[in-house]
Amino acid sequence: MLVKEKIKQAISILKERNIDCWITFVRESAINHDPMLDFLVETDLTWHSALIITSKGDAIAIVGQGDVANVQDLGVYTEIHSYVKGIQEHFKDVLKKLNPSKIALNYSIDSEISDGLTHGMYQIIYSMLKDIKLHNNIISAEDIISSLRGRKSLTEIANIKEAIKHTIEIFDLATDFIKPGLTEKQIARFMKEKAKERGLELSWDEKYCPGVFTGPNTNVAHYSPTDRKVEKGHILNMDFGVKVNGYCSDLQRTWYILKDNESVPPKDVVRGFNTVKESIELAKEVMCPGIQGKNVDFAARWHVMSNGYEEFKHGVGHQVGMFPHDGYALLGPEWEKYGSKVLVPLEKDMVFTIEPKLFVEGKGIATIEEMFVITEDGAEYLSKPQEELYLIK
Amino acid sequence: MLVKEKIKQAISILKERNIDCWITFVRESAINHDPMLDFLVETDLTWHSALIITSKGDAIAIVGQGDVANVQDLGVYTEIHSYVKGIQEHFKDVLKKLNPSKIALNYSIDSEISDGLTHGMYQIIYSMLKDIKLHNNIISAEDIISSLRGRKSLTEIANIKEAIKHTIEIFDLATDFIKPGLTEKQIARFMKEKAKERGLELSWDEKYCPGVFTGPNTNVAHYSPTDRKVEKGHILNMDFGVKVNGYCSDLQRTWYILKDNESVPPKDVVRGFNTVKESIELAKEVMCPGIQGKNVDFAARWHVMSNGYEEFKHGVGHQVGMFPHDGYALLGPEWEKYGSKVLVPLEKDMVFTIEPKLFVEGKGIATIEEMFVITEDGAEYLSKPQEELYLIK
Repeated sequence: MLVKEKIKQAISILKERNIDCWITFVRESAINHDPMLDFLVETDLTWHSALIITSKGDAIAIVGQGDVANVQDLGVYTEIHSYVKGIQEHFKDVLKKLNPSKIALNYSIDSEISDGLTHGMYQIIYSMLKDIKLHNNIISAEDIISSLRGRKSLTEIANIKEAIKHTIEIFDLATDFIKPGLTEKQIARFMKEKAKERGLELSWDEKYCPGVFTGPNTNVAHYSPTDRKVEKGHILNMDFGVKVNGYCSDLQRTWYILKDNESVPPKDVVRGFNTVKESIELAKEVMCPGIQGKNVDFAARWHVMSNGYEEFKHGVGHQVGMFPHDGYALLGPEWEKYGSKVLVPLEKDMVFTIEPKLFVEGKGIATIEEMFVITEDGAEYLSKPQEELYLIK
Repeated sequence: MLVKEKIKQAISILKERNIDCWITFVRESAINHDPMLDFLVETDLTWHSALIITSKGDAIAIVGQGDVANVQDLGVYTEIHSYVKGIQEHFKDVLKKLNPSKIALNYSIDSEISDGLTHGMYQIIYSMLKDIKLHNNIISAEDIISSLRGRKSLTEIANIKEAIKHTIEIFDLATDFIKPGLTEKQIARFMKEKAKERGLELSWDEKYCPGVFTGPNTNVAHYSPTDRKVEKGHILNMDFGVKVNGYCSDLQRTWYILKDNESVPPKDVVRGFNTVKESIELAKEVMCPGIQGKNVDFAARWHVMSNGYEEFKHGVGHQVGMFPHDGYALLGPEWEKYGSKVLVPLEKDMVFTIEPKLFVEGKGIATIEEMFVITEDGAEYLSKPQEELYLIK
């Protein structure tokens, strides 16, 4: 069971990082869902709830009476406290007894995946901790969460691999389906049908999963497929992913639609595609435990720019897990919005995408997104990489 | 379109409450989803994004480049600013120009539905506002959100009514289905199948939608159906709801399983059921615009207790909307966990459940949950109320 596996892992990460106590504080999680809850309870919690893991191996849940039975059923919490009127007294009693020197809370300035604590809830827990003089011990749980989500178990990797396999198979089916005259919407519908036939959930909002981008006037990422038609002489690319047991894939592939007089794609399209492919290889070569994401990003970014293409307007890669954008460490440049994400050292068993992108004048967007796992001393492909442009006649 | 309707409504609420500016600040909303986003963009936003509504009628979106097209398509934002590296400069420019005397932010100590802002994101926006000396103007947006979610439009009410209609029809089908020997799980499966046949989503987590509780040793709310069997002489109740166009129903009904020698339910069961029914009527009589939820709760609670039953361990009712637990104002006692929710005056067009509960010794839980809309001077049933125990032979 995921919760059992992850709580055990959390305890060892707490020891390793010398943090005695990690608290995830939530309420009405159907409304504001802390992304860590899937690792901690696998159910929604209604009233103010504190899930407390300690480096000594305690797993303590303080929850409203209506949620007790669901938490008990998990069989992983060593102590369960229940209340009817309010959490304060119970919470303070437990914390006074633990008397931790560091209290890692579920918030973070830079890492959204570690930032499930709402500001209202922060004020409540801060005030409770202040009453028992522990408020100065609060730190962000971002480093714990980074390792806990990042270091994938064999089961997690197996789920991701299975999701990747389906995604590539569906891309292959699309290669037989795509033809000039079809709209982006029609292609998207085809992809969704194939996922549905296999009983798979999509990795992200079905409005733009898949993303389908065709020709030189296409929109960029995250935009819904349009009525724009596939045309000869244009590039088409897709961004697509599915979930297996809650774990996502996130891949991109590029097609070229041959003109009547063409048997191979034109040089500029091939050069664009190859530049993307080479950039991915260069970034992969750099990846290993301990390196910062900004260095991986730079390897790919520099290759695209030094070949005369415009700089792509996003980090070159991100982690993947239960969310298509998962984890803290990110492969990106030192731009304001990425904050410390690009400075976090990569760890063994983290799963990343690499997805450089460039525009081929008058033809469309060339991009490939592959997925990798960090190994002892480097990185390995999880996806069977796209080696050549897929050609549509 | 919902977004158009709600932004217009928000502008008039801002004027009415004399607040010049309301900001919803989010990032990676697929991970941390502010519950107000469904009213503001109907799509996920990836990078740091600020959605700003002013009492003068501006609707300003500052979003990452990849999300611009989706926001443009809504056709309701009067200004859209896009960025690649970071939001700071753009955000400060816009706010300096607006120079609001009050800045209502998406956080709240007591109201989880108004508390989508994470603590990390609060620190980011606070620091940006401090740089331009506007940080002292920050207030909670809870009052704006309370009215905006609470005051239901005719379309919203129509959706809820339709969801209620389906729910009651499915309860009626269950009355023909339930028989001694069936397990809670089998009954739950039946309910889900009926919802699926009608193409309806469930109102809450399918693990406990419906909740099925049978006999005197049953669990309480929010617990998954078990292998416990329906028995003669026991009470059975269900908690169930479905969504229509994103709007929920949330209703409970009570059945009694007649013993072989019974043609009518025993007196204690009837007395329990009638006490619940009367409590609902008493609470309904009290409901009107301006009254505080604690007074509505008290009317029902007192009737249950003065009839010698144990006090129910939850507020007597909550608002319903896009979430089964929606809104700020709540019908509950002044318990710590409810904070100011039970002090917020009710407004016309708010939709509430009323759901008192009591235990009938040796038989099970008697409970009914009905739904109401607040009118000009009182409240009206939205649900066709359960007048008598449903009997199973």
